[in-house]
Amino acid sequence: MRFVTITDIEAAAERVNGTAVHTPLLRQHWAEGQLWLKPESLQPIGAFKIRGAYNAIAALSEAERARGVVAHSSGNHAQAVAYCAQTFGIPAVIVVPDVTPRVKVAATRGWGAEVIEVPIADREVVADRLARERGLTLIPPFDHPEVIAGQGTAGLEIAADLPGVDTVLVPVSGGGFASGVGVALKARCPGVKVYGVEPELAADTAESLRAGRRVEWPTADLARTIADGQRAQPSELTFAHLQRVLDGIITVTEDEIRRTVRTLAHRSRLVVEPSGATAPAAYLHHADELPGGRTVAIVSGGNIDPELLSELLG
Amino acid sequence: MRFVTITDIEAAAERVNGTAVHTPLLRQHWAEGQLWLKPESLQPIGAFKIRGAYNAIAALSEAERARGVVAHSSGNHAQAVAYCAQTFGIPAVIVVPDVTPRVKVAATRGWGAEVIEVPIADREVVADRLARERGLTLIPPFDHPEVIAGQGTAGLEIAADLPGVDTVLVPVSGGGFASGVGVALKARCPGVKVYGVEPELAADTAESLRAGRRVEWPTADLARTIADGQRAQPSELTFAHLQRVLDGIITVTEDEIRRTVRTLAHRSRLVVEPSGATAPAAYLHHADELPGGRTVAIVSGGNIDPELLSELLG
Repeated sequence: MRFVTITDIEAAAERVNGTAVHTPLLRQHWAEGQLWLKPESLQPIGAFKIRGAYNAIAALSEAERARGVVAHSSGNHAQAVAYCAQTFGIPAVIVVPDVTPRVKVAATRGWGAEVIEVPIADREVVADRLARERGLTLIPPFDHPEVIAGQGTAGLEIAADLPGVDTVLVPVSGGGFASGVGVALKARCPGVKVYGVEPELAADTAESLRAGRRVEWPTADLARTIADGQRAQPSELTFAHLQRVLDGIITVTEDEIRRTVRTLAHRSRLVVEPSGATAPAAYLHHADELPGGRTVAIVSGGNIDPELLSELLG
Repeated sequence: MRFVTITDIEAAAERVNGTAVHTPLLRQHWAEGQLWLKPESLQPIGAFKIRGAYNAIAALSEAERARGVVAHSSGNHAQAVAYCAQTFGIPAVIVVPDVTPRVKVAATRGWGAEVIEVPIADREVVADRLARERGLTLIPPFDHPEVIAGQGTAGLEIAADLPGVDTVLVPVSGGGFASGVGVALKARCPGVKVYGVEPELAADTAESLRAGRRVEWPTADLARTIADGQRAQPSELTFAHLQRVLDGIITVTEDEIRRTVRTLAHRSRLVVEPSGATAPAAYLHHADELPGGRTVAIVSGGNIDPELLSELLG
């Protein structure tokens, strides 16, 4: 197993510069203690996923890249791959479950990608077949060193902007984001504590870290959380990284997530999706489980349905 | 009359660095053409006002500053002065009309300021008396070279982040922001066009620029617009700057402002106040009056009442 290094992440930072936004750290004076938010919700596709997707595509050889890329996802990763492929002017095929909301299919097509709808169980098989038949390269959402390295560029930015940071909170789903951010921060800020954050209805990584091995949760269980960006589970690769870089993991309730979406709109002036609210929710509602000090909570994304936003603000 | 120069603004940039956030330019792919937003709504007090207030206080002599500052405002400038005074550890007195909503009074007190409520007509007189009696320095919201220079730092950031910018849209109320941003951009980006934006219900500057002299509108007329941050009128100083730096002025309707608050929440993931939506509204609804090209619309602030936000999103 190849662990991602700070050198990989530095190379990724060179690549994503100009495509991913260097998001600012925003001090939140209304909160007790010293909290900064890092709003990845302001990236071009509304989530940090652009960092990993772009880095993985940029790291391909020119010949590989010219043949195009394929991904299977219905979420932010699909849009990230489609967006980055358009940036490079290469073909992208996105395989989505045939139950995907029309609005998400349209958004992905809007970036010029070919969208293929298949029964949910067939996604991986179809993507693999397309990769073989058309010579496309599969860009996975997290189980890939260059994707992890790309996500880690957010950690480099935190280290550059707040070198004395004490605690960083990062959401965990497939674990690529937390892995990359953790590697970057541990290399650059000795002594920093990095905490993962999960919804209690999708707390598979908390259980896995306690058990010392990956414990799989049924997909139907993971689907219960409102944090739809946190329904994936780590791979062997990301889990091994998380075991190395996380100092702990915080579990937040559905009610805490909902309340934090509302608080961030009213106090931080940010529209965030439920998954984007889990790290700030950990800060606001679980301070007793955290070491405190100068704390950065990463807001991972802002793609929330207008109806849900209105409901949570109402 | 002393015109603010690029040198003044460069000095201001040195001072506000570390207090004002260098807000990113956010490319908006959903909009036709090439639009970037500059979200000043993400400043610590939720508006660009922190730039000018901080610069004016930082430019005082140490002895003057130690005696404290006074401002009369019920809006974002009051919070900016209170916040910056707290940063310097000096006294701040804010004189507000006795009809100011409790929530705004509480927010200003929250920054450690003494808030004095007076009948609306007495604000200036009381502030002047307090300045004399207590040796406080008055920090005006726009009619002051160092305030204008501070606001101009937002223009320097645009020039640094997008040197090839063609058009910049900036809201106009008292004119300090547009003056400073205009001076910075005209010095750094030869050929850039700078447009002011006003609500049609407070379009006194549009009329004044046409007339070639300041035309005052009745306060009751200005109070009609939902854009409560744009109910002030330029002073002689700011009007003279606007005559030099603005290439034109766009007028937006109340309906365009309301719809843009909603669009920016859903598409840009930003919570903005009505005044913060006027420059983007000009881009979205008045493209035929603009030269086009790479365009930056400045979102001036995000302090919107939760009830109004819910109403506009509903």
